Amino acid sequence: MPRTVAQHLIADHLVSGDLRPGTEIGLRIDQTLTQDATGTLVMQELEAMGLDRARTEVSVQYVDHNLLQADEKNAEDHEFLRSACRRYGLWFSKPGNGVSHPTHMQRFGIPGKSMVGSDSHTCAAGSLGMLAMGVGGLEAALAIAGEPVYVRMPEIWGVRLTGELPPWVSAKDVVLEMLRRHGVKGGLNRIIEYHGPGVATLTAMDRHVIANMGAELGATTTVFPSDGAVAAFLEAEGRAGDFVEIVADEGAVFDVEDHIELSAVEPLIAMPSAPDNVVLVSEVAGTGISQVVIGSSANPGLRDFAIAGRIVRGRQTSDAVSFDVNPSSREIFADLTKLGVTFDLISAGARIHQAGCMGCIGMGQAPAQGSNSLRTFPRNFPGRSGTAEDSVWLCSPETAAASALTGVITDPRDFAERSGLEWTGLGLPSKATINTDMLVPPLPPDEAKATQLVKGPNISSLPEFPPLPGELRGPVLLKLGDNVSTDEISPAGARALPFRSNVPKLADFTFTRIDETYPRRARENGEEGHFVVAGDNYGQGSSREHAAITPRHLGLRAVLAKSYARIHWQNLANFGILALEFTDPADYDRIEREAVLVLRDPRGQLAGGTEITVHNETRDEDYRLLHRLSGRQVEAVLAGGRIPLLARAGRRTGG
Amino acid sequence: MPRTVAQHLIADHLVSGDLRPGTEIGLRIDQTLTQDATGTLVMQELEAMGLDRARTEVSVQYVDHNLLQADEKNAEDHEFLRSACRRYGLWFSKPGNGVSHPTHMQRFGIPGKSMVGSDSHTCAAGSLGMLAMGVGGLEAALAIAGEPVYVRMPEIWGVRLTGELPPWVSAKDVVLEMLRRHGVKGGLNRIIEYHGPGVATLTAMDRHVIANMGAELGATTTVFPSDGAVAAFLEAEGRAGDFVEIVADEGAVFDVEDHIELSAVEPLIAMPSAPDNVVLVSEVAGTGISQVVIGSSANPGLRDFAIAGRIVRGRQTSDAVSFDVNPSSREIFADLTKLGVTFDLISAGARIHQAGCMGCIGMGQAPAQGSNSLRTFPRNFPGRSGTAEDSVWLCSPETAAASALTGVITDPRDFAERSGLEWTGLGLPSKATINTDMLVPPLPPDEAKATQLVKGPNISSLPEFPPLPGELRGPVLLKLGDNVSTDEISPAGARALPFRSNVPKLADFTFTRIDETYPRRARENGEEGHFVVAGDNYGQGSSREHAAITPRHLGLRAVLAKSYARIHWQNLANFGILALEFTDPADYDRIEREAVLVLRDPRGQLAGGTEITVHNETRDEDYRLLHRLSGRQVEAVLAGGRIPLLARAGRRTGG
Repeated sequence: MPRTVAQHLIADHLVSGDLRPGTEIGLRIDQTLTQDATGTLVMQELEAMGLDRARTEVSVQYVDHNLLQADEKNAEDHEFLRSACRRYGLWFSKPGNGVSHPTHMQRFGIPGKSMVGSDSHTCAAGSLGMLAMGVGGLEAALAIAGEPVYVRMPEIWGVRLTGELPPWVSAKDVVLEMLRRHGVKGGLNRIIEYHGPGVATLTAMDRHVIANMGAELGATTTVFPSDGAVAAFLEAEGRAGDFVEIVADEGAVFDVEDHIELSAVEPLIAMPSAPDNVVLVSEVAGTGISQVVIGSSANPGLRDFAIAGRIVRGRQTSDAVSFDVNPSSREIFADLTKLGVTFDLISAGARIHQAGCMGCIGMGQAPAQGSNSLRTFPRNFPGRSGTAEDSVWLCSPETAAASALTGVITDPRDFAERSGLEWTGLGLPSKATINTDMLVPPLPPDEAKATQLVKGPNISSLPEFPPLPGELRGPVLLKLGDNVSTDEISPAGARALPFRSNVPKLADFTFTRIDETYPRRARENGEEGHFVVAGDNYGQGSSREHAAITPRHLGLRAVLAKSYARIHWQNLANFGILALEFTDPADYDRIEREAVLVLRDPRGQLAGGTEITVHNETRDEDYRLLHRLSGRQVEAVLAGGRIPLLARAGRRTGG
Repeated sequence: MPRTVAQHLIADHLVSGDLRPGTEIGLRIDQTLTQDATGTLVMQELEAMGLDRARTEVSVQYVDHNLLQADEKNAEDHEFLRSACRRYGLWFSKPGNGVSHPTHMQRFGIPGKSMVGSDSHTCAAGSLGMLAMGVGGLEAALAIAGEPVYVRMPEIWGVRLTGELPPWVSAKDVVLEMLRRHGVKGGLNRIIEYHGPGVATLTAMDRHVIANMGAELGATTTVFPSDGAVAAFLEAEGRAGDFVEIVADEGAVFDVEDHIELSAVEPLIAMPSAPDNVVLVSEVAGTGISQVVIGSSANPGLRDFAIAGRIVRGRQTSDAVSFDVNPSSREIFADLTKLGVTFDLISAGARIHQAGCMGCIGMGQAPAQGSNSLRTFPRNFPGRSGTAEDSVWLCSPETAAASALTGVITDPRDFAERSGLEWTGLGLPSKATINTDMLVPPLPPDEAKATQLVKGPNISSLPEFPPLPGELRGPVLLKLGDNVSTDEISPAGARALPFRSNVPKLADFTFTRIDETYPRRARENGEEGHFVVAGDNYGQGSSREHAAITPRHLGLRAVLAKSYARIHWQNLANFGILALEFTDPADYDRIEREAVLVLRDPRGQLAGGTEITVHNETRDEDYRLLHRLSGRQVEAVLAGGRIPLLARAGRRTGG
């Protein structure tokens, strides 16, 4: 049967299951990517597993999130990560080398390879024809240890691109168009595969922008074919030899189909505070702003900064606007500097920040309350910027740069017309400035074995997770709405992020964006455990497994929701929290906060099939829910999570 | 009588007193400089005074300290400052435009003018032949309102420079040599005036380095003559018309004298954790380091970054080292970029940060505990970096850059020799890239009057300060050693700085670097008030008046110390805290923590002369202390501080 690109990639890495959507498949993983905000736990997990040495082709630990170093904790995390890379045979990308996704694409990405990463935007590597997925830290740790990764076989969603983008409209507008049409749940249990003649008009880095924000659609991943644009990218990066052509077979059939005519795409913007709250820029033009930020893995390419530089060149940003520019990688920053773009940006009033994720994860450049911040970032969930009552908009670099100059939201087409700015292309170089000196290669095995982990005082061990008890009985401590993100479950930001290596301390921040009393009430309720009830798409957003570990540490044993985001659902199973789905969504309305729920004989019920009965003591009524766990996952949940399971089996994955 | 440069400058601005050292003089102030960490209180003080419009020739509010924006507070402070500049007719230097001192020197500094600034390094402007002093915020506010500034007439300390610095040795080493010889109290009640043939071998920006760190010597200020080097600097900045020659009269006599032969100066380094803990770099060469930071007002010049760029060009920093570079101003960053230095630094592994003060005040880039950080900064007081157990060393850009490459403390002369690096000069341009677009000029008076202050939720009003009571009786809550800095009294750093506009909240951090229990114990002790006992040079370091306001808010009414740093001593008087000096230093040893002290009839004692008797109830003995307050200051202390005094007099300085 003819295959799509996604089906080819899956088939090439399949170790269990088959290509029928909905069944569990196991995939062999060639590469892994971890970043510092999630990576410290991954390294603690490798330690807990007793791993001797990474078994992947390439595993890279990036330091790109916690760069501000308001106190010693971040610097100590970096030293711990460096020592863990030396110990376990990983590459170490030093702080300042850049955001994981563009850096990995530039230096390590190879068409046809599979990758998981403990970062939800790992899917960006689909731009090179890779099968790349964001996963929880533990999945990443297991992949480093050579274990397959298990996912439900997704549907393949073909999006046919035709035509070509007009001037002042770019890849970001394409993925915002997808979000406008389909929303943050549109991609659940799907791989988005772009195809058609319009694909050839997009560079590999344009595709990165689109694949990256596939995460915001909830997709398992996004893939593009590996074609001439990918070959040109690898050639520019001095890696022409890594090119492999991967295209769909003639007659391949998609499970779902959509079509975008690129020439009809207009500048779009996601209004506060959801990535799918998308309108035309022209509909909100004239709205006053106080900040513009350009950067992040959602617009990481040389062209994304160069177009901003072109628009502001010889002009000055509005007095009322802070114009923040955050180069995405050292390589791109070097090229921008060589090309004169850095000079143009500084001259126009830009505040230039070290290469990294920065404000995208609330690590600096938080805006004033109640004032509008325009960002080229992938997410604008409430409070993610670091400001409680924030008002963050997501847009292209073109829209961002034009608005920085005028001080109001501005359609870049209008700005160009009014100011006589002509579209003449950017004249970017065909060769990148390659400099790999901040990528520290793995140590030889003998040296690695002799290396000690460097653990500062803030780096804890993982807490213990006891097995599922004979009966779960406890109160519903939170009743949540739809689309609760992992940013709301376990916040990022400059206050919480430094505790990412310290679960007991980080737990104090759990759910506090929604209800400040949760950590206290959960601790008071104690080890008996409690429940959380949620609506649709529970756990969307970032891959952070802290959003499972910290509530589990506080006693959460089961979530009852209408539906789940993929990565978080997997993290819940990995850490022994039962993720249950309502068979009748109306039951959601029948459970109130503080209601006492009982799940009798969970062991027997899980063994008996996919249906689970939960009793509401407060109302004296029963609900039927589904668990959707594979046999493998049931075992893990019964044991209290995958780590206790591994420990109990006395299984050592390495050494 | 022939005059020195300092005496000329003072005589030209004298409104009261005469040039006899030790007497109080009043000075007319031409310019003021405020920064954001101290400026928000200055603006609140202008508001409390009812000022209509700044009465100086030039007053500039810079935003250079609180740039990280971990939450909304910093951005809201910036908006408040911007609105206050619009209201009161000040210049506003936007975030990202750079550190106040080099920026002011480049754009506003004029030989012969007087200036005060609410930043202890304001003295850097002595590099241009200005009379420039760091003062507390309230002094700055009064200067903005057109009031004279009062200081004790200092001694003039002539330091004769001869010869010329050898390659790989620079201005930083000269001021470190001064600190090695004279320590952090060496300049107390003195103006340092550099003279002699060696002066001509130093550029104006070299002089800035030396004048800046005069603050670390405790000097009232530092002055250089305004000569050909100053003319060349102003010419490069497009302000040749602002040049005025100011040199000492033939036969002028200094109160104190010293001599430095520049050709004999070697690379020096201040070890943790005091700026005068100075040794030869060669004595500590080989010590391992984890961080190098280049930047701050202590090494702000184009050459300071260019020399670092020259040393690292084509080389790579050690894997173990984070190499942080913090351009000091937008103008310098633009020139570095144009010259290719930015590219060289990025290529060598630098993390480039936005133009500003950053880590110098603990606002980011805190190092790991117990690891060595080399910085070109002016101060290394314990914990100032943001890390509790820090280990910060101060050195020249040459030493810093060479050490970043080797990963150990390295004498740059040795590095040059070993690596075949030849000294060929830097070939810097004779014209700067001038761009004033981030300096927002004052509004015309009518528009200014119509402007409203923008106060975010974190911006408080000043608390009330009641007058001195009929008797002061209370416990000694702290007994401190020598050289306690304002960093230890009211810490900076990323946690505390965002509360700089919120006295009640900031008070929670008071003295916590020394004793975490102080704020609680002070609040428990209540409004009756308490005492603090200290050794020599109490209150050295930063000019922040928060170090007087927050303990006063917590009930501190009198300090008993062996001696005081100038600016803090003035701040104590301004905010109604009695600063008393032991006549017999041995009495210091007779007062224990928790001893109960009584100061009977303070009003009568202050009226009666400079001697004050304090009774120790616990030991039943008396001590004689001096107050050194002028009549003007006594009045202020009795009223509870200068603001209540102004309020009581119903005096409005403007409107």
